[in-house]
Amino acid sequence: MSSEKNKAPLGVFDSGVGGLTVAREIAREMPCEEMVYLGDTARLPYGSKSPDTVRRFALEDADFLMSRGVKAIVVACNTATAFALPILQREMPVPVIGVLDAGVEAALQSTRNGRLGLIGTVGTVASQAYQKELKRRSPNIHVVARATPLLVPLIEEGWLDHPATKLVLKEYLESFLEQDVDTLLLACTHYPLLKPVISSILGEGVSLVDSSTTCALHLRRIMEEKNMVATRVARGKMDIYLTDQTENFESLARCIVPGEIRKISAAALVSRAF
Amino acid sequence: MSSEKNKAPLGVFDSGVGGLTVAREIAREMPCEEMVYLGDTARLPYGSKSPDTVRRFALEDADFLMSRGVKAIVVACNTATAFALPILQREMPVPVIGVLDAGVEAALQSTRNGRLGLIGTVGTVASQAYQKELKRRSPNIHVVARATPLLVPLIEEGWLDHPATKLVLKEYLESFLEQDVDTLLLACTHYPLLKPVISSILGEGVSLVDSSTTCALHLRRIMEEKNMVATRVARGKMDIYLTDQTENFESLARCIVPGEIRKISAAALVSRAF
Repeated sequence: MSSEKNKAPLGVFDSGVGGLTVAREIAREMPCEEMVYLGDTARLPYGSKSPDTVRRFALEDADFLMSRGVKAIVVACNTATAFALPILQREMPVPVIGVLDAGVEAALQSTRNGRLGLIGTVGTVASQAYQKELKRRSPNIHVVARATPLLVPLIEEGWLDHPATKLVLKEYLESFLEQDVDTLLLACTHYPLLKPVISSILGEGVSLVDSSTTCALHLRRIMEEKNMVATRVARGKMDIYLTDQTENFESLARCIVPGEIRKISAAALVSRAF
Repeated sequence: MSSEKNKAPLGVFDSGVGGLTVAREIAREMPCEEMVYLGDTARLPYGSKSPDTVRRFALEDADFLMSRGVKAIVVACNTATAFALPILQREMPVPVIGVLDAGVEAALQSTRNGRLGLIGTVGTVASQAYQKELKRRSPNIHVVARATPLLVPLIEEGWLDHPATKLVLKEYLESFLEQDVDTLLLACTHYPLLKPVISSILGEGVSLVDSSTTCALHLRRIMEEKNMVATRVARGKMDIYLTDQTENFESLARCIVPGEIRKISAAALVSRAF
């Protein structure tokens, strides 16, 4: 692999800005890498949409990153990973890494009683992608999954500790307490922001696992294996592209990755026929 | 105006299927009309997105309806009305009617003390479109507006009477009670589904006004003035197009307009450059 190749940026995409939590972990693990981040804010959310539509959006997102010359693509969106990872890996000429493997690995390492809880969008849970991969790697695992579609809107309203958020979470999390899970996998990039209130409901006996940290480690391992790590000395920067630019998205982005952004620009995606 | 023209369908669009509440009222007022309904379910919601993006989406939606040969276009989405009605009226070669005028008229007829409340999406409220039109028609009116972004997700979760929905509404509606409004304008096509719980919080002294009924009357008046009403005897039917087809959207559509749907099909929109 030529060093020219290594200088190319890493590409990361998500339906919105939540995937920047994954990009932030990548920047911590591999600080010399340049990054191009695409948030498809004009069409978010992906979590309530059909598999075909999510696959088409994911391909268009990946096409955009390829047009920016990326050397690898990280799918920092659980719904897109669940529905589109295989087709992206087939169609893209660079390595494509999703958040699923990392989350599954972290959850299996965490559980002691073999009883796992999983929360995510309607699409992620209905796809069964997490449930199947957990069972494949650990056939005796017991998985309790629940779609929790109100959490992203509550987070975006900023109600991280509001009584209504607690009431919603109590209803969503009730079955996990009844089923005696000891680990809850947060299968959506937004959910880590609710860790304190989720912990207060589930108690200290339940570990909360999310995939952003393990995804970054997974990516670094793959980049090292393929000899694709950037070797410059200077710290890398991040170019953020959004399909819809609002003040809200931009300020949230600056809040998640302060000091690492070179610029935030508008992105025009090229449609794929469907 | 030739009778050929009159046989053309009416076009209605919304970001999703909520606008079918408006289409249903139009079918009641003008039962002989054929209708083409477009729900941009692949890109919903519009309420949190920027004015430029909402305008582009609205133009693409209207282009699609024009390609189906409609004789008039109803914008059954408050956010699209608030941001895009003037540009649609300039660019489309047929009459374009929004939900704003109808809602404003109904609210001004309802209030006795001149103190109005308004709830809608972030986009609708921030656009000031309703507030400006209310003030223009009735300069002494006092308007209290609040964006209520959690209501659509709660409705879509089916929690119409859930304790969490009541808690969210109590917080959202508090200021209307303090400010002594006697009429609340529901400036989003989804909100009429929450009328019972909103009434239970605000009490009988506050009238709830929505724009679907008055919008249909407004449309009929314009169609009559322009001599564009369909004169066939048979009852008209509705062709529904969705940019993303999920079971959830289709069953919700059948629930809102039972017995009036000819078919539900996928729609591919043509992108406008931005």
